[in-house]
Amino acid sequence: MSTIAGRAAIVAVGDELVSGEQPDKNIAWLAQRLGELGYTVEIATLVGDDEQGIAALFRQLANRAELVFSSGGLGPTLDDLTRHAAAAAAGVELVLDDESLAQVRAHCAARGTEASPASQRQALLPAGARLLPNSVGTAPGFVLGIEGSHLVVLPGPPRELQVVFEEQAQPFLLGLPRPALGRSVARFFLMGLAESDFAGAVGAWMAREANPRMGVCAGRGVLKVKLEATGANQAEAQEILAARVELFRTRFSKEIFSEEDAEPALALGRLLIERGMTCATAESCTGGALAAALTQVPGISAVFREGFVTYSNEAKQVRLGVSPADLATHGAVSEEVAGAMSRGAAERAGASLAISTTGIAGPSGGNPKTPVGLVCFGVTHAGATRTYTRRFRPRGRSFVRDWAVNASCELARRALLR
Amino acid sequence: MSTIAGRAAIVAVGDELVSGEQPDKNIAWLAQRLGELGYTVEIATLVGDDEQGIAALFRQLANRAELVFSSGGLGPTLDDLTRHAAAAAAGVELVLDDESLAQVRAHCAARGTEASPASQRQALLPAGARLLPNSVGTAPGFVLGIEGSHLVVLPGPPRELQVVFEEQAQPFLLGLPRPALGRSVARFFLMGLAESDFAGAVGAWMAREANPRMGVCAGRGVLKVKLEATGANQAEAQEILAARVELFRTRFSKEIFSEEDAEPALALGRLLIERGMTCATAESCTGGALAAALTQVPGISAVFREGFVTYSNEAKQVRLGVSPADLATHGAVSEEVAGAMSRGAAERAGASLAISTTGIAGPSGGNPKTPVGLVCFGVTHAGATRTYTRRFRPRGRSFVRDWAVNASCELARRALLR
Repeated sequence: MSTIAGRAAIVAVGDELVSGEQPDKNIAWLAQRLGELGYTVEIATLVGDDEQGIAALFRQLANRAELVFSSGGLGPTLDDLTRHAAAAAAGVELVLDDESLAQVRAHCAARGTEASPASQRQALLPAGARLLPNSVGTAPGFVLGIEGSHLVVLPGPPRELQVVFEEQAQPFLLGLPRPALGRSVARFFLMGLAESDFAGAVGAWMAREANPRMGVCAGRGVLKVKLEATGANQAEAQEILAARVELFRTRFSKEIFSEEDAEPALALGRLLIERGMTCATAESCTGGALAAALTQVPGISAVFREGFVTYSNEAKQVRLGVSPADLATHGAVSEEVAGAMSRGAAERAGASLAISTTGIAGPSGGNPKTPVGLVCFGVTHAGATRTYTRRFRPRGRSFVRDWAVNASCELARRALLR
Repeated sequence: MSTIAGRAAIVAVGDELVSGEQPDKNIAWLAQRLGELGYTVEIATLVGDDEQGIAALFRQLANRAELVFSSGGLGPTLDDLTRHAAAAAAGVELVLDDESLAQVRAHCAARGTEASPASQRQALLPAGARLLPNSVGTAPGFVLGIEGSHLVVLPGPPRELQVVFEEQAQPFLLGLPRPALGRSVARFFLMGLAESDFAGAVGAWMAREANPRMGVCAGRGVLKVKLEATGANQAEAQEILAARVELFRTRFSKEIFSEEDAEPALALGRLLIERGMTCATAESCTGGALAAALTQVPGISAVFREGFVTYSNEAKQVRLGVSPADLATHGAVSEEVAGAMSRGAAERAGASLAISTTGIAGPSGGNPKTPVGLVCFGVTHAGATRTYTRRFRPRGRSFVRDWAVNASCELARRALLR
């Protein structure tokens, strides 16, 4: 078992996944949690509702990984075949589990219905499996030994999978011999640096054999960086990581906006709440997406005063006091108008900080002076207004809008820290 | 080849995918496109940046599918190993491709930089491969024969993958012998029906052996239904589908909000543009997400007047004219206030339609009278205001907000059609 110790594999079951009707929502979550517990996910596979195909996959993966996780296919309907596939893979029968049947009945009773024959199907378990009760749904999970590995079968709805993992699977995993290798992970979120410039700046830190190993993903202006150190044990891994983390923080002090929040809006929202600083937004091209991003943060209502989505020129004038002369002379997409918008929003909402956006999100509406992708921003803070212009690649309406939301929040955060 | 004809498999390459740092964004898109072209995706696998592992997977899948698609691992850095793995799987060498090198150089020149040695790595191709030029990035794709199947290798960034697919891979596929089986697909998007009630209403239509086969996915109040008919040829499949589509439309005439748009906001936005009907939004708990959803629609600026994100009670009074008495007597989360909000928004923005939301998104802030998940809506249309209350499951802030956005748009759409 030494070659497979610490390795994990994930199977996501469902016709809707392989047909592309429904993107998988469990693999990334499970992989992250398994990583935190010291396991390395080597492979993850989406497969349709086909009993033999699932069973073959379970056997194959059990031969290369210590843990095989599965999500989905545990419901009451005839296309739910994961428990049958697991039994086939282990070469055991399905048996009606009393504890599980009682839970299905209790769950139905709580909803004022009787357990239908279909829902009783959910109480079938492969012989020898260990039940993982589901406190938030009718389909319990289970653990089954296959080929010396553990097959951990979880329900497919993300919330049920997560609850059964936390309440049941994780305690089970913590009872197993821990993976020998120590692992320690740090994350950084940066803005204001192209991926290629980042690659140049980190040089050999990103070599495949480096320890810590560095991975980077880029999207909408944000670089998500992961550093993962391995060592003979946890303490050694942490030590190796800590040294690199310190260098990384120094080298990218200007660009790192968070070590927790993957979105600039979350980092800004937290900073505003921390400081008790009131804020407002004035949006044209982002159409409410900036306000929506900021108001994702729980507790933001203590500081978020209001948002103006002033799509029309008339609304910019009436609601924010932008002058008709500025609109006529400079156009709605200009730093002059962006500045007037943030100034107006700060004054009228009585907020310490206001952020504005005005630009051309596309797909049409551009011209040589203001091409698709051009966005102007205003940040009013403590009575002073700064304006900015950025030109994003015209890769579609949502691309430009999302990038503009990220950029505006980061401009505001930097203005606050100046 | 008969057992594998018409079958496809997908491989998504990247350490960030198996570690869960970055959810895959290509599999669902590719699977849908392949389905439209008559191929059935049987299996999709996420694998890390490991040359041997990727090569073994390519060989294994080429033995069971006519087409194997791969995404990612074509970049310039040392962890980009897909082209090496493809060459190893086919048992051929990598050679420097002149056409490809010229493209890399041209792409760099267009950005005012020189092609670095690293970026020239992107011009390596397995011997015998057919180049799939990339018009929007430096990494071209390619097609390579393996074990009698076609391995189609595409770049990982979703936009590049999609462009190379549309411009290059699809014409290649259309040149292959078509899958014999006819397939025809219809989609419906419904709101206002629980998944279990839907299952009861469709009965045997959802049996596994039914033709058309029916799949359903539920999320944020929306049911996405897919009907897929198969026949000996395309005409037969279309005929089988058409009969069921007619019955489906009749049975769910009330709940179907679109056969194209998966989001109620898109369906509403299109309807408003079609009718040239001006609109405005007034949001509390959705914090701008309703305006952002509506303004996703290209061309909406012709009818969207403005949005009010009135988070504070003061903003509700000053901006929308909600009376302090209503706020004090009924509370901010009440139909009275929701109605006053939409009325105020319609009047002040001069819009024919206005939609309002006020509720408790959570995670905290609830109380017995207004628990987390409770949202009130107002729809003002042609001078008349209707109000509604919905109680969503308190499954997190974004869950409640997203569901409230969907519900508000669907309430407005139905008000318009009444």
